[in-house]
Formats: sequence, structure tokens, C-alpha cells
Amino acid sequence: MKDFSSLSLAITDNMLSLIDQTSLPAEENWIRCEDEQTLCDAIAQLKVRGAPLIGLAASAFWQLQKEAGMSEEALKSLAERLLATRPTAVNLQNNLESMLQGAQWEDLAAEDIDLCEKMAIAGASLVKDGEKILTHCNTGSLATLGVGTALGVIKQAHKLGKNIHVWVDETRPLLQGGRLTAYELVKAEVPHTLICDNMAAHLMKEGQVDRVFVGADRICANGDFANKIGTYNLAVLCKHHNVPFAIVAPSTTVDKNTAQGDDIVIEQRSSAEVKGFAHPTNGIQWAPERSKSFNPAFDVTPAELVSHWVIDDRVIVDAAEL
Amino acid sequence: MKDFSSLSLAITDNMLSLIDQTSLPAEENWIRCEDEQTLCDAIAQLKVRGAPLIGLAASAFWQLQKEAGMSEEALKSLAERLLATRPTAVNLQNNLESMLQGAQWEDLAAEDIDLCEKMAIAGASLVKDGEKILTHCNTGSLATLGVGTALGVIKQAHKLGKNIHVWVDETRPLLQGGRLTAYELVKAEVPHTLICDNMAAHLMKEGQVDRVFVGADRICANGDFANKIGTYNLAVLCKHHNVPFAIVAPSTTVDKNTAQGDDIVIEQRSSAEVKGFAHPTNGIQWAPERSKSFNPAFDVTPAELVSHWVIDDRVIVDAAEL
Repeated sequence: MKDFSSLSLAITDNMLSLIDQTSLPAEENWIRCEDEQTLCDAIAQLKVRGAPLIGLAASAFWQLQKEAGMSEEALKSLAERLLATRPTAVNLQNNLESMLQGAQWEDLAAEDIDLCEKMAIAGASLVKDGEKILTHCNTGSLATLGVGTALGVIKQAHKLGKNIHVWVDETRPLLQGGRLTAYELVKAEVPHTLICDNMAAHLMKEGQVDRVFVGADRICANGDFANKIGTYNLAVLCKHHNVPFAIVAPSTTVDKNTAQGDDIVIEQRSSAEVKGFAHPTNGIQWAPERSKSFNPAFDVTPAELVSHWVIDDRVIVDAAEL
Repeated sequence: MKDFSSLSLAITDNMLSLIDQTSLPAEENWIRCEDEQTLCDAIAQLKVRGAPLIGLAASAFWQLQKEAGMSEEALKSLAERLLATRPTAVNLQNNLESMLQGAQWEDLAAEDIDLCEKMAIAGASLVKDGEKILTHCNTGSLATLGVGTALGVIKQAHKLGKNIHVWVDETRPLLQGGRLTAYELVKAEVPHTLICDNMAAHLMKEGQVDRVFVGADRICANGDFANKIGTYNLAVLCKHHNVPFAIVAPSTTVDKNTAQGDDIVIEQRSSAEVKGFAHPTNGIQWAPERSKSFNPAFDVTPAELVSHWVIDDRVIVDAAEL
């Protein structure tokens, strides 16, 4: 397999490496995926995350095993185990199915980078000069192989000189906003301010949010979509305050086989993530031992709360056109 | 001054001590307020917090200085410095004004305990058997000298055998829900589940929230009120999902001199609280050094989003009756 390198994924001498996103921004550690367990753990523990990136990381590993001579049967069962690591995003499933049908990873990777570029350009056309844009979770180069989805749009608007300011939801419990999006925006020198997730409503009331861009893990046939927990909260706030609420995702995230949001399986994650700050070496628990907690990784936003679906190079305002 | 003791405040041999709420629930450390600076730091750093408790802690210290023979002039300027520690809650101001006009701390303390009891009984009358109740921040015995305001209502409903379940918003950035409310509910053996602030919308959509109770730091003449950041977010969600949204506060929190929410001064706190987990010995920063952050301690909820104002022993549904 040809060498490859992005902010979050590298292939060198037929070895897949992934940046450990649980250690960012403090440390840039790379995980060498020497065996299946290392990769499955990295996905399950969110060391690699972001719907497009998970699919591409799993597919790269799969192709490396194929090229190393793994039997067809073993490859099929490997794909099943990789698929079982996380249930909600559709990209993992789509990518592995493509691989099983003979696709080349290099083509999927090139497509991801190309679609990111297209989404960035299409989405940025919505942004007016001087706008204050709010985003949730991380949807940039740490979630894709390209510039990203929602964050790609934001970086593109900045690159076009639109003089934007970004409000970054910290995105509890795993703080993908406070750690990862902030890290990317510092690198890209985009002006931004970090907030706690419960502050967005106050900012909207004060007229400080002109637009919201978020990503998507699975978009249903009717336009409902799953995304990081807290996304639906933002959508309701946008409706109340008349703020446009756009989602940005590649067409590979659209799942026509899932009719509506209620049919999406929501992954439930460990209680420990909510009871403190989950970190590989520096974690802390602040909640009482005896308190229970609830930890859905995603929520579902109904199509009626979406202003724009930015899909590849299209800006769609009617879910029927998805 | 007579000895006194509650979960969060003690007076022993004319010395005021306060439990350090930044160390809870891991450690129960008491701060001896030997001088003014110790108390002012404790208030500013939220070692003592909760609108009623701050007012009563400051007033107790003030009376101790008076009894120790401090001059009238010095007492007046002490009151001014105490008042300057935190601007948003009205109780601090009200209590210190009462002291300057000759009130006895023992009477204010007894009134607080009595009003908590009355609010608990009045508020619990709204709760039906088996309800799932969501609350934000900490409004219990760590915020008052009595059973609390919103959390007092919840504990009372449990005591009455109403078979309730409590969803506890963790309340970023300082995690008064995840640390303090959870701590009180464990102690009171009330069934509860901790959530991140961005999960409430998802729970409401799933029909898992029957009612919300929150406290208040200042209620305006028109019924608008300031409370912990994130309260307004909940109020908007309640409106969208038709969930009753009640605030619980003693009449000492009503400020007829402030006409409406826009007139309330919102305290802005340090960026460091949002960029990580603030803790006296075990703190951590997870956000990039170069990222800015925004940290309003409170937000303002307009009266039109409030279903019930539980004030002392009254349940009010029309702000005109405040």
C-alpha cells in the first residue's frame, strides 16, 4: 500500500498509524495499529473518532491485511468485528462494504478529501462577512482525511477572508470541541472562543450567533440525522432564536435504508465519561462513586429543525432532495 | 454569638467556618474565616456559594466583627467590600443591608431555614407520583442553611414517598450538579442520574422529563430571573417540549428595584474555569493555551418561559403576583 499522511492518519511501510485523539491537545502520540485489537480498542475508546475517519481507518487496516494475504473468510469476519466497534455512524459500514466489494482504499481516501473540499466550498457560500458561527464537537481534519465537514466550511470561510468568529461548544463529556476543534482552530489561526455547551442559548439571546454548522454521523432518508450528543439541543435553540442551523456531511453519510431518526441505534457509552474527565493518563472523577450517570454518545435531530443540508457540493433546503 | 451548625456553615466559639465546596465531594475540608480576606476569597472562588448561603455567610462574619467591637465606620466599609465579591445574587446585598439596619444574624438564619421548609412543601405539591424531575446547579443544603430551594422541593417530594427520579445536570463549568447536588442526593438517598448539560434536550424528546425545578439568584419585578448559566437553555427546551419549568426561591431573592432581566449585571468569571476542571489541588486544563474562552456565571430567563414561581409558601403562575 502506498504511504499516506494526514493530520490524524498515516500509512508508512504498510503500517497504519493514528494520532491518539484522547491525548490531544497536550500530546501528539501516534498509535501503531500492529494488530486488530489495537485498532478496535482505538475506535471503541475514541482514540480515533469522527464518522468519516473511523470508516477510513478501519478500511485501511482491512486492506493492509488483505494485501498481507489474509484469507477471504478471515477478511469477512474481520470486517464484522470492525463494524461492531461503534454502531451509530454509517460511514464505517459503507466503507467496509465497499472494501468487501473490491474497492481500493486509495480511492475512498481520495474521495473523502475531494468531498471535504466540495463541502467546504458549498457551505462557505452561506457565510456572510463578519458572521459569528457556532459549532459543536470536532468535524475537521481530525474527523476526516481532508479539511473536514462543518469545520471545513468554517476554515474555508476564514480562508476566503470573511472575517468570521467561531464559538466552539466544548462538547461534554469527551470535550472534542474544547480539545480538538480548539486545537485545529489554533493551528489554522481562525479567531475562536471556547464555551461550555450550556452557554449557547445565552449567546443566541444576545444576538451573538448568526449561524450554526454541525456534522452528521448518519442522515436518514427523511432528513433526520444523528450527530454528537448536544446537537439536538442546539437545533431547538436555533429554532427558538431564528438562527440558521446547517448540517454538513458527505453523501456517504446519507443512509437511504434508514427511513427516519427513530430507527437509528444510539450508542450508549460508559458512565465514567460523565462522572469526570476521561483521559488515558490524567483522568479524574469528580462525581460521587454512588451516583449513576447516563451517557448517550449521540442524539437525533428531526429534519424540520434543519435549515440547510450541505451534502458534497450541494446546499439543500428541502429534505426531499437528499 | 451562639454556636450554629449546618451542612455548609458552622459558628463555633465566635469563629465562622465554611465547608470548602470546591473540594467536595472528594474531601470535606472546612475553612476557618479568621480574617476578611479569607472570607472574601472563599466567596470569590466559590468555596462558599449559593445565593442564600453567600448572604448568610457574609452577614455572620459581619456580626462577629461587630460583636468583637469593630467601629461603625469600619463595619460599613467591610459591608461594601463583602458586597463587591459577587454582583449577581441579590441576597448578599439584602442581608448586608438588613445587618446595617440592626438585624440579628440569628433571625436571618432562622428565616432562611423556615423559608426553605415552606418552599419545599409548596413546591412538592406540584409533583405527581412517579415523576422524573430535572434540576440544574446546586440549590440544596450546600446553597442555604436549610433544606434548600429547588433541591429542597425535590428532597421533600422524595420524603413524601412520591417515587421520583432526578436527572442532575452536571452544570459546567464548575460542576455544582455533578459534584454537589449528586453529593446531597447520595446523602439523602434520592434516586438520581447524572447527565451532561447538553443531554437534557434528548431526554425531553424521549419523554423522560416531567418537570424542571431550578433556583434563582435574582428575580426582577416583572418575573424575569437570573440563575446559573444553562438555566435559560433549559427554559427554552422546556417550552419546545411542553415541560413545566418552575423556579424556587425565597421572597428575599425578589428584587423589586430591578425592573427586568436586561437590568441584571451578569458576573463574568475567569477563562480558566472553561478551559478545564478548576480544583484547588487537582485541577486540569485540557484546552489549548492559545484558545480564548467566555464564562458568564449566570444567564437571564424571561418570565414568559416560567410556568411556576415557588416563592416561600406560594405557588405563583402569574408574574404580576410576585
